[in-house]
Amino acid sequence: MIIHKTFNSLADILHSRRQRLASLIDFPAILWSGSISPRNFPANHFPFRASSHFLYFAGLPLPNAAIRLESGKLELFMDDPQPNSALWHGEMPTRDEIAETIGADTAKPMTELESWLEGAATVANQDAATWTQQSQLLNRWILPQNPPQGIDLELVKAIVTLRLTHDAGALVELRKAAAVTVAAHKAGMAATPNAKIEAEVRAAMEKVIIAHNMTTSYNSIVTVHGEVLHNEQYHHPIQSGDLLLADVGAETEMGWAADVTRTWPVSGKFSPTQKDIYHVVLAAHDACIAKICPGIEYGDIHLLAAAVIAEGLVDLGILQGNPQDLVAMDAHALFFPHGIGHLLGLDVHDMEDLGDLAGYEEGRTRSDRFGLGYLRLNRPLRPGMLVTIEPGFYQVPAILNDVNLRSKYQNIVNWQRLSQFADVRGIRIEDDVLVTTEGSEVLTGALPNNASVIEELVGC
Amino acid sequence: MIIHKTFNSLADILHSRRQRLASLIDFPAILWSGSISPRNFPANHFPFRASSHFLYFAGLPLPNAAIRLESGKLELFMDDPQPNSALWHGEMPTRDEIAETIGADTAKPMTELESWLEGAATVANQDAATWTQQSQLLNRWILPQNPPQGIDLELVKAIVTLRLTHDAGALVELRKAAAVTVAAHKAGMAATPNAKIEAEVRAAMEKVIIAHNMTTSYNSIVTVHGEVLHNEQYHHPIQSGDLLLADVGAETEMGWAADVTRTWPVSGKFSPTQKDIYHVVLAAHDACIAKICPGIEYGDIHLLAAAVIAEGLVDLGILQGNPQDLVAMDAHALFFPHGIGHLLGLDVHDMEDLGDLAGYEEGRTRSDRFGLGYLRLNRPLRPGMLVTIEPGFYQVPAILNDVNLRSKYQNIVNWQRLSQFADVRGIRIEDDVLVTTEGSEVLTGALPNNASVIEELVGC
Repeated sequence: MIIHKTFNSLADILHSRRQRLASLIDFPAILWSGSISPRNFPANHFPFRASSHFLYFAGLPLPNAAIRLESGKLELFMDDPQPNSALWHGEMPTRDEIAETIGADTAKPMTELESWLEGAATVANQDAATWTQQSQLLNRWILPQNPPQGIDLELVKAIVTLRLTHDAGALVELRKAAAVTVAAHKAGMAATPNAKIEAEVRAAMEKVIIAHNMTTSYNSIVTVHGEVLHNEQYHHPIQSGDLLLADVGAETEMGWAADVTRTWPVSGKFSPTQKDIYHVVLAAHDACIAKICPGIEYGDIHLLAAAVIAEGLVDLGILQGNPQDLVAMDAHALFFPHGIGHLLGLDVHDMEDLGDLAGYEEGRTRSDRFGLGYLRLNRPLRPGMLVTIEPGFYQVPAILNDVNLRSKYQNIVNWQRLSQFADVRGIRIEDDVLVTTEGSEVLTGALPNNASVIEELVGC
Repeated sequence: MIIHKTFNSLADILHSRRQRLASLIDFPAILWSGSISPRNFPANHFPFRASSHFLYFAGLPLPNAAIRLESGKLELFMDDPQPNSALWHGEMPTRDEIAETIGADTAKPMTELESWLEGAATVANQDAATWTQQSQLLNRWILPQNPPQGIDLELVKAIVTLRLTHDAGALVELRKAAAVTVAAHKAGMAATPNAKIEAEVRAAMEKVIIAHNMTTSYNSIVTVHGEVLHNEQYHHPIQSGDLLLADVGAETEMGWAADVTRTWPVSGKFSPTQKDIYHVVLAAHDACIAKICPGIEYGDIHLLAAAVIAEGLVDLGILQGNPQDLVAMDAHALFFPHGIGHLLGLDVHDMEDLGDLAGYEEGRTRSDRFGLGYLRLNRPLRPGMLVTIEPGFYQVPAILNDVNLRSKYQNIVNWQRLSQFADVRGIRIEDDVLVTTEGSEVLTGALPNNASVIEELVGC
């Protein structure tokens, strides 16, 4: 219902969000945007990224600002630009102009925040300059690595409740991020046959994102070594028999993210073994998306992916046994060691700064099972939630050469047969799936994943 | 002499650097690389950038590491990758392998650093996590904003002495950065006529940098509002009569920077007024580079640029008076309010983390004159120094509409005539110039700056 409502402006969107917050907590909340992080010297800084909690309620990426939310009212605290600033940075909007854009009830200089701290809860920022300031002003430790307590915990729970499902304003942004991400992947496929190293494919993809005045929502993975799950190296040569795995997403100027993975053959043609495994991963991907609907447990979606992958690997002769039994003994995790996905929103792993408070339903904790420990989301799904679905198959040396695992699964894996799939180092297929009242909508569905269509897009 | 010596390997380059350090100080130095800065949550971080001082002596961008330099010996402190790390990040080189690559005499885990602190000097890192750790371990405040004292100041002065001139190893990297930057600017010129907003030109330029597995050495300026000196907005539409100013540089994987600006007509054709001003700026650029040689004062190069610009503006009827008198009364600074350039090396403003300790010869301080206050370098030039030469002309509203300045220069500026140049908001021409024993070498000289050649490159 919420997700079908149409908003007129940023101020309206933000007004609705803080009204909903006011219905959940009866104390004030203060959220800091964060400061600009220096790179190698103060004037050479990383691009500013405001705290996602701040962005959710303040809408704009304003550095060194804070907002105070109480009973549906929004107070903005920030300083006007320095007199000298216009020379270097041009005319910037004033505090009052920004206040009007975001519909703030009052706007005050940062120094006045001191008088408005009483009884206020907050969420720890990521950057040390800001959490130090938060701790000093509120006179208690506000550390990003410490679980929140007292009213801070109550605030966090309220924010999680709101941010778990996306309103119309959020969805406009999330669809923009998805569309640009789809275009970026197509550009990557097109650029691959002429690329000599991974960096050239990455460049073709990020060019699309930069051209739309967006940024990447995380450090891109563009690699012929898909078996390295978080590979941030781009120097490897690309060779004709390789698969290229690209996990690249755009983030809008307001901070909303997309997160998509495709895997394609460098030559434009999957080898028979590559195509066999690709179809196993795609079958898991499609089965999971088909199951997504309100009420279903995300953990069950993960187990479904595990079962489809196990079944596919049995059919290919790589695993031996009954698929359900194989999942029960975590044999799928030899090749699919991560979770089926995660929440997506202002953060690519949405609200992961809060540990598992957003990802895990209250009372649930991480499993220590090999096949479940990396699951980042364990909740029943509800309309308006946006999740990734990203099954994969990897031959990770650190797993397959592990003495204990190798001995435990000695008779489960047909190692001889597996060796025939040496040209499949890593395959992942990832889309962004919105839970709707009717079932689901794949926001990134415009990007093909059918193996033959993918083959056609490479080099085109 | 130094700059013509050929080195065989990274280890040799680093060995030579620490031998030279040992000839300048007789106490140990410990340099930290810095930690990874989180973006919106810990696992989603900014790309790691090691401290430039660390990079100079350790060669590789190793996060969470430290080196200890004493009497020409190099000790590396870092932890081996976590056992779990291979799953997510792949097999990483071990501490011992890295030690061999950089020619370290010993390699120890980070915890052992505690036993090697006695009498050691250091330089403050930029990130708060690291300078907090530095302060705790050394039991004194090591704050990036505080001027260094005692042995820390002695160390800084020694490092400045070394880093002021570039050795052969540095020059190999600086030439790589320059070459990729030249290619990026050509791509930007080619992409402009088909671009609808600034971001599209930026994307074409940064694509070249990313494809070479490099990063930008600072946040790119790509704008039709060249009058905003540090413009980091890219959303403005590009229109046919506009000039596009692009200040974009590449940084190699080892951290060495380039810094280049060109200004070109969106249509591929300068208007007569644009071409007139372009020629004034280019004349200043060429005159400065022609003067660069060992022994000349960089401050005099700045004043030369000011004089050429003043003369050009007198010739165009914009300023009235004798050029030397106009410079003496800072009238040029109405249109050229910044310095002629700065040091370039591992940082785009090399060693600016040290305030003016690198840029200003000992005993010199910043002028408070309108036309000199922003000069970042004030030293006699020596062979092996790399500097930028970047004259410009800007119509900055914050300056030209300033009541005091307008009144002070009321009869100096022909405001009527100036109004005919309304289509020239900002022009800058910037190259990277190496001081050689014979005079100078423009490392970025492969990029044309002749107005007619620039016109030909737009859209090609």
